Amino acid sequence: MVTRLNQTDIDFEARFAALLSGKREVSEDVDQTVRAILEDVRARGDAAVIDYTAKFDRLAVASMAELVVTPQEIADAVNRVPKEVCDALQLAHDRIAAHHARQLPKDDRYTDPIGVELGSRWTSVESVGLYVPGGTASYPSSVLMNAVPANVAGVKRIVMVVPSPDGVLNPQVLAAASIAGITEIYKIGGAQAVAALAYGTAAIAPVAKIVGPGNAFVAAAKRRVFGTVGIDMIAGPSEVLVVADGENDPNWIAADLLAQAEHDTNAQSILITDDPGFGEAVAEAVERQLTRLPREQVARASWTGFGAIITVEDLEGAMPLVNRIAAEHLELAVAEPEKLLDKVLNAGAVFLGRHTPEAIGDYVGGSNHVLPTARSARFSSGLSVLDFVKRTSVLKCTPETLRALGPAAIALGEAEGLSGHARSVSIRLNL
Amino acid sequence: MVTRLNQTDIDFEARFAALLSGKREVSEDVDQTVRAILEDVRARGDAAVIDYTAKFDRLAVASMAELVVTPQEIADAVNRVPKEVCDALQLAHDRIAAHHARQLPKDDRYTDPIGVELGSRWTSVESVGLYVPGGTASYPSSVLMNAVPANVAGVKRIVMVVPSPDGVLNPQVLAAASIAGITEIYKIGGAQAVAALAYGTAAIAPVAKIVGPGNAFVAAAKRRVFGTVGIDMIAGPSEVLVVADGENDPNWIAADLLAQAEHDTNAQSILITDDPGFGEAVAEAVERQLTRLPREQVARASWTGFGAIITVEDLEGAMPLVNRIAAEHLELAVAEPEKLLDKVLNAGAVFLGRHTPEAIGDYVGGSNHVLPTARSARFSSGLSVLDFVKRTSVLKCTPETLRALGPAAIALGEAEGLSGHARSVSIRLNL
Repeated sequence: MVTRLNQTDIDFEARFAALLSGKREVSEDVDQTVRAILEDVRARGDAAVIDYTAKFDRLAVASMAELVVTPQEIADAVNRVPKEVCDALQLAHDRIAAHHARQLPKDDRYTDPIGVELGSRWTSVESVGLYVPGGTASYPSSVLMNAVPANVAGVKRIVMVVPSPDGVLNPQVLAAASIAGITEIYKIGGAQAVAALAYGTAAIAPVAKIVGPGNAFVAAAKRRVFGTVGIDMIAGPSEVLVVADGENDPNWIAADLLAQAEHDTNAQSILITDDPGFGEAVAEAVERQLTRLPREQVARASWTGFGAIITVEDLEGAMPLVNRIAAEHLELAVAEPEKLLDKVLNAGAVFLGRHTPEAIGDYVGGSNHVLPTARSARFSSGLSVLDFVKRTSVLKCTPETLRALGPAAIALGEAEGLSGHARSVSIRLNL
Repeated sequence: MVTRLNQTDIDFEARFAALLSGKREVSEDVDQTVRAILEDVRARGDAAVIDYTAKFDRLAVASMAELVVTPQEIADAVNRVPKEVCDALQLAHDRIAAHHARQLPKDDRYTDPIGVELGSRWTSVESVGLYVPGGTASYPSSVLMNAVPANVAGVKRIVMVVPSPDGVLNPQVLAAASIAGITEIYKIGGAQAVAALAYGTAAIAPVAKIVGPGNAFVAAAKRRVFGTVGIDMIAGPSEVLVVADGENDPNWIAADLLAQAEHDTNAQSILITDDPGFGEAVAEAVERQLTRLPREQVARASWTGFGAIITVEDLEGAMPLVNRIAAEHLELAVAEPEKLLDKVLNAGAVFLGRHTPEAIGDYVGGSNHVLPTARSARFSSGLSVLDFVKRTSVLKCTPETLRALGPAAIALGEAEGLSGHARSVSIRLNL
């Protein structure tokens, strides 16, 4: 039985608050293991990477050269992927590239009214490491979602690491890498791969930033190397919030809720509707569809564990609830979604209308599918070109403008007890 | 004696690499203490905050109401600050506001060639906590540098916390808060203040993001609550890199190096010059000025511990070194700074020409003085309006565009083993 809440219930606020604060993820305590691996790779370099790859991936090699994915391996992989899938990846690539090209920030140089030159100057991150998980969570679409914004930003070097347990690589992932133009790829994973990217080894030059999803070891390693390199967000389990009126086909909405639930037993699918009968129809449709879903077990655990159907008086009035949930994915399945959109303050991505299932955004919409989870849309954004550039501010005074601004700077330097600050100004003004 | 490096020395690369990788900060291990404080505040709320404030700030109160800074206290503080300083703060405020107003990102909604509607929609973070340290590191300029971008971004609620050891508050900090329009201020600090902002208490509603500098306890607390709320960067000790030819007045450049060194014994000031004689003249000028500096002891420890004078063949050829240092502050004290600026890839802020001492940027230039330290300019930017907004992507398909994109999404969903994803599309296409 899925959780049901009704806004008119006396205990609604308490139950809604509990839904918001419920922990969906048990964080494994792998920090000490990860710390040791990082230190070892920092000290012993490639030799340590080779040792851990033999141990964790059951892939024994004599040298790092054997862990390099060759152009021939990439070409072979592309040939093994069905043309239909390659074409779909190419379409996704092109649409992601087109959308993200609009995100490139522009330099801004100007002279203010008193003659001071100011500016913001954007430059790309010089090198980026892209972590790709091995095994079942190895998604070609995620390769594109991480690599394409980096390409658009002008990142010169993208290094991909992907573990190959028992020597097996996912050919789809290599096909996606090929489409994204990635040529430097290593068959390594786990904390050892993160360490190699952050600190560098004899074989692998260090990068400035590491992005991409990974398991608990990878996440802990990224947290630890943060500062030495930049990292992207640490993503939690995925979630969808569907706001739907009674005019929808319950089967469509049930399919959307299950598309999220099938990701992970910790995923969360929530429906908010103003039609109690529709809510029940969706609940029934979910049950019917579950039995036909290949990933039934995962989806059922997610739906019964974390799913919810919330009945509200009216959808517009429910938007404060939507903003408190701050969902990674928000579907507005109503006739006039723009009216509701105007009231959305917190959401990773919004899917408008009855014909925009969230899965379109996962693959071929063009927007990014790396989005803030666990209510972090209250303060953060999905992955974008901005994650692969940085801004340098520029300031230029003339003798005249320094004379105009100098006295205020001197006053503040002295007021803060920083006479040396004041002195670096006054010495230029012969004060 | 300050460290001297010459690019023509045989061991230059090794010594330069050592300079880059040298740790300037000993990180105090306060994490267990902080963890306990966070848990206690989460559990006991205001009572815990009151207890820790009595213990750490020697400020005993009976209720949170006594820890609220009143409008009268703010007005009294403003009256105690010299008019010259208030005027300088107002000038700084207005210039910071004008510069940051240019950083506001614009929404982008468009329809692509096949008819899919896409967009990026920016909204402000709803509420922000601003941490202000007590004691000597309590800077009014930092209040403005953190609060003004939040105001420009449209943040509705800014909550300031500032410890008042023994009940003493810095009136300049309250004056800056007043100028920035901050009205909700609590006399609390440390990990307990961070916890109150992140989790909320009966007296203090929680915020979505916490910014501002603090000591080791505050930094550890911010790291721990990250995820529950957003945080800004964790700043390390400050640094300046001055690139100067022999045409500069050695006294001016020495003053700039000392303005940085006086911040902190762990601060770092580096000079790169193509004129060995000029380098020595600066070294001598530093020694002369040090004896007259009120914060001589701090500045001397920083200069002898972490300062460096690097002699290079030519300045343009030295720009790769500049980019490897990736300094928080970079002065280009040459006749044609724009030529060098073109080659700057990594820097927090650049100060152009001989008449732009870095201290102007600390106070009244208009750009932000919260900048990436410890080489993190390789992958991150200074504080800006972008830190107080977040982007939501928007996607809208029609039945026709879903028919166009759907098959590719279905192919990728099936290829990734996510049939539920594929099903949420195919069900709408009667496939």
